[in-house]
Amino acid sequence: MYILYYSPGTASMAVHLALLEIGAPHELRRIDIDAGEQKQADYLRLNPNGTVPTLVVDGAPYYECLALLMLLAERHPEAALAPAPGAPQRATWLQWMAHFANTLQPAFRQWFYPQDFARTEHEQDSKAFARRRIEAVWQRLDAHLSAGGPYLLGESFGVADLYATMLMRWSRNMPKPATAWPAVAALADRVRARPSWRRLYEIEGLTEWV
Amino acid sequence: MYILYYSPGTASMAVHLALLEIGAPHELRRIDIDAGEQKQADYLRLNPNGTVPTLVVDGAPYYECLALLMLLAERHPEAALAPAPGAPQRATWLQWMAHFANTLQPAFRQWFYPQDFARTEHEQDSKAFARRRIEAVWQRLDAHLSAGGPYLLGESFGVADLYATMLMRWSRNMPKPATAWPAVAALADRVRARPSWRRLYEIEGLTEWV
Repeated sequence: MYILYYSPGTASMAVHLALLEIGAPHELRRIDIDAGEQKQADYLRLNPNGTVPTLVVDGAPYYECLALLMLLAERHPEAALAPAPGAPQRATWLQWMAHFANTLQPAFRQWFYPQDFARTEHEQDSKAFARRRIEAVWQRLDAHLSAGGPYLLGESFGVADLYATMLMRWSRNMPKPATAWPAVAALADRVRARPSWRRLYEIEGLTEWV
Repeated sequence: MYILYYSPGTASMAVHLALLEIGAPHELRRIDIDAGEQKQADYLRLNPNGTVPTLVVDGAPYYECLALLMLLAERHPEAALAPAPGAPQRATWLQWMAHFANTLQPAFRQWFYPQDFARTEHEQDSKAFARRRIEAVWQRLDAHLSAGGPYLLGESFGVADLYATMLMRWSRNMPKPATAWPAVAALADRVRARPSWRRLYEIEGLTEWV
C-alpha cells in the first residue's frame, strides 16, 4: 500500500499516473497548495522541501517526482514501465529521465514561480529566459521522437512518457506550447488516450488539456 | 571501454570519479569549454545540449551527469557504489540523486551562467536568488547527514557522495560555501581523502579545494 500526497495537476501527477498504470493499491491525500498546506509542520516532517509529491512506501516518506517514477517502475517490473538494468534501452531511458529532472522541470519552476528566481519587477524578463530553455527542450525532444518515436523509447510506453506528458501539459498556456512540435504533440495524444489519463482527470478533478 | 568527454572540474567530474572508483578502462577526451568546443558540430552530434559530460558506452553517446552515475553504478555492481533495486536504501538513494539533479545542479547553473536566467543588468540579483536555493539544500543535506551520516546512505560510500561532493566543490568561492555546514564538510573531507579524488586532480590538473 502506497500513500501519495498530491495536488491536482502538479508534479505529483506523473506519480499518480504511474500508480494507476501499475494498478497498485494506494491511498490519496490531497494537499491544498493555495492554502499553503505543503509548508505546514506536519507535511514538512514528511518532505522538508514543502513540495508535492511525497510517496509513503513501506511506511517511509520519499520525495522527488523523478525518484518516485524510477522507484515505482522497478518495484513493479510486471507493468513494464521502464527497461530493466542491463536492457538495451536502459541508458537512453536514464538519460531522458535525468534530462527532464535536470533541465525541463527546473525551467518550469522559473516559469511558474518567478519569485524564486528574480525580483518582482524583473519577473516577466525572468520568465522569458525560462521560456527559451523550455522551448529548447521541446525542440530536442521533437527531434528525438521524430527519429525514433512514437514513445521516448520507440515502441515501448513507460514512465518516461508520463513524465514528459505531465511537463508538456504545464506548457499549455505558454505562448508556444509543447504541442506546437508535431512529434511531441503526437506523443501527448497517445498518452492522453490512455485509460490512466482519463481516470486521473476524474479523480483529480482536472478539466484543461484533456 | 568507455570514452568520457570532460572538462576539468565541471559536471563531468563526478562521472570521471566514478570511473576511477570502479577501475573501469576508459579513454578521456578533453573539451575546451573556453574555446567553445562543446558547441561545435562534431560535439553536438554526440550531445545536442552542448554540455559535458558525454559518455560513450558500447559505441553510443549518452549525457546527463545523474544518468551516467546511475548507469555506471548498475553496470558495475561489484564496485558497490549504489544500492541495488530492491535493497533497503534504494528509495533514499534515488531521492537524493534526483534531488541533486532537480534542485541543486540547476541552481548552480543560475549561479555560474546568469546570462541564461536574467538580463545582464540583473545578473547579480539573479545570482542572489540562486544562492538562496543552493544554501537551502546544504541546510537540508546537513540535517540529513547529521541524523544518519557520515555518507548520504550512512556507512556506505557511493556515487551519491561523489555527486554531492562535486556540487559542494562548486560552492567553494561562494559567500557561504557548503563546508560552512559541519556534517556537509565532514562528508567532503572523507571524499577528498579518497585515492580517486587525488588521482582525478592529477589527471584533470585541478588545484583548488584539494
